[in-house]
Amino acid sequence: MNFAGPALAEGPETARIRAFLNGAGAAGGTDPAVTVTLPVGDDAAAFRPPDGAQVVVSCDASVEGVHFRREWMTWETIGYRAAASALSDLAAMAAAPVGLVVAAALPPELDVEIAAALGRGVGEIAGRVGAEVLGGDLVASPGPAFLDVTVLGCAAAPTTRSGARPGDELWVTGELGAAAAALCDLERGLEPDLRARRAFDRPRPRIDEMRWLRDRVRIHAAIDLSDGIMRDARQLAVASEVALEVEADRLPAAPALEGFRRAPAGERLLLAGGEDYELLLAVPAGAMRDAERAFAATFDLPLTRIGSAREGEGLTVSGRSNPALPAGFDHFEVER
Amino acid sequence: MNFAGPALAEGPETARIRAFLNGAGAAGGTDPAVTVTLPVGDDAAAFRPPDGAQVVVSCDASVEGVHFRREWMTWETIGYRAAASALSDLAAMAAAPVGLVVAAALPPELDVEIAAALGRGVGEIAGRVGAEVLGGDLVASPGPAFLDVTVLGCAAAPTTRSGARPGDELWVTGELGAAAAALCDLERGLEPDLRARRAFDRPRPRIDEMRWLRDRVRIHAAIDLSDGIMRDARQLAVASEVALEVEADRLPAAPALEGFRRAPAGERLLLAGGEDYELLLAVPAGAMRDAERAFAATFDLPLTRIGSAREGEGLTVSGRSNPALPAGFDHFEVER
Repeated sequence: MNFAGPALAEGPETARIRAFLNGAGAAGGTDPAVTVTLPVGDDAAAFRPPDGAQVVVSCDASVEGVHFRREWMTWETIGYRAAASALSDLAAMAAAPVGLVVAAALPPELDVEIAAALGRGVGEIAGRVGAEVLGGDLVASPGPAFLDVTVLGCAAAPTTRSGARPGDELWVTGELGAAAAALCDLERGLEPDLRARRAFDRPRPRIDEMRWLRDRVRIHAAIDLSDGIMRDARQLAVASEVALEVEADRLPAAPALEGFRRAPAGERLLLAGGEDYELLLAVPAGAMRDAERAFAATFDLPLTRIGSAREGEGLTVSGRSNPALPAGFDHFEVER
Repeated sequence: MNFAGPALAEGPETARIRAFLNGAGAAGGTDPAVTVTLPVGDDAAAFRPPDGAQVVVSCDASVEGVHFRREWMTWETIGYRAAASALSDLAAMAAAPVGLVVAAALPPELDVEIAAALGRGVGEIAGRVGAEVLGGDLVASPGPAFLDVTVLGCAAAPTTRSGARPGDELWVTGELGAAAAALCDLERGLEPDLRARRAFDRPRPRIDEMRWLRDRVRIHAAIDLSDGIMRDARQLAVASEVALEVEADRLPAAPALEGFRRAPAGERLLLAGGEDYELLLAVPAGAMRDAERAFAATFDLPLTRIGSAREGEGLTVSGRSNPALPAGFDHFEVER
């Protein structure tokens, strides 16, 4: 069972699907080499990738009460964030997004308006990165709302987590900690600083930034920062079989962290706060020299060297070894 | 956040992911033209489709208490059925499966054993059709368990729902109603007939059958029977802008329906019972003539002409028009 567009027979479920699809609109198609040959509306959708291209696929699931709360954000924002989080994985691979497949389980009381709002949120970010909704499934759930967004993209040569080498420099796009600052305030019942709120509600997957960099700089490895730089850098270290050193003082703290910065909580938000969706990159020493300023000028976004890779294993932050530092988020511990 | 294979840092969530992936195994690769270039374990997975091929994508979501119940089946069966249902959409498109992306929200009390059992069920059917698990996300849920399986395949020319023409014959693979018979018994607290139980627990997406037919017969349109032939035939009629006539006496009723056949309930199971995952095909008149027997001999499966298409719209069953007949399943009505 799937989304089936204009030709679908009527019913309460199909009304929600129709509302979702109308909300999402028909964006897509920034990459002229990719053709969506069969849009949403059949048993499956289809697209034709450029000859020789690889198809890149990832997904991201979120559950009401665990990953989002209705009190904290609109349904547009819930849809946007779910899609942005999945698209961020494509950014890390330097893939051009093609489409999204969206499954949602919604409590029966959630009406057509809410399906439409979810669709608008998904469509907002999909349109921005040139992807379209290729399919999905909308079902009733007696429990909390659930969203799963699978993203598909194309890349001639996807960038992985596993290519960092001893001697590489570590770079990070953008600023860190703003989304975590917003979450911290929301959890305490406070209204976040506007900049933090914006970072939390409308994270920007670094699709264009990564593809720009990939065209100019040899990138050995990349990972997106969804679970906090501590945890994600550790993943990159393990996957690449190198030791990583992060210089905490170099980390580009978001201005929204100012109110938190001095306290231990501030350091925790900066190091372990997730959902920034910036990219951590490992590049050969000196490789960013020519690109650094042009990047900042092109995207109005900082690009910061924050550490390096060496022989060994594990993660060190400014000379302290990792066990003492806060861990990232693990869903079965719900520890933050 | 995604499945990240061997290199993933430890934690309760990753233990479940590891158990799931171990359960699923590393099947895949029956189509030598498709290479999985980057398996599960990075921000995303990647594969290289054959030059010129289209990538076909679909998904299927299921919720505990709505689509399945723990009391009725093992977690292997829950995993198998979720994957089989999604793969059936690829069968309808005549696509060769490449991979699956599996998102699951599981109550925190569901342990590593259950993640492994889900993985085994998904892996059983994935292996059978030559697909592998390319990614996923395993998250904790305070509510009912939720599963979403997205499937990816390749096809030179996917078959759609929309190509049926007046004069076409309607054919169906296999037998109908056994899964619905099992469900009917389960809902009444009875243990189903073994044949019905088997059809319900281990439906076979008609991947090989459809690709065999596609190579021999001009197929104008196809749809898989997930929601019952009444509802799915109506979808095909609407998508193709034709009227369909189904001769109820020709429908290949499963032997497991014998106990129900005479009653109105039996007719309802045959016409509106879902989850058979057989295929409904529209082909030019006479086109099946040479293939019919060879198909039955090759797959030990009936292939039955059950009706025809003509100018007009809507669905007629043996001279009765559709409003009087039972509707299929609509999740927001939960009417069966």
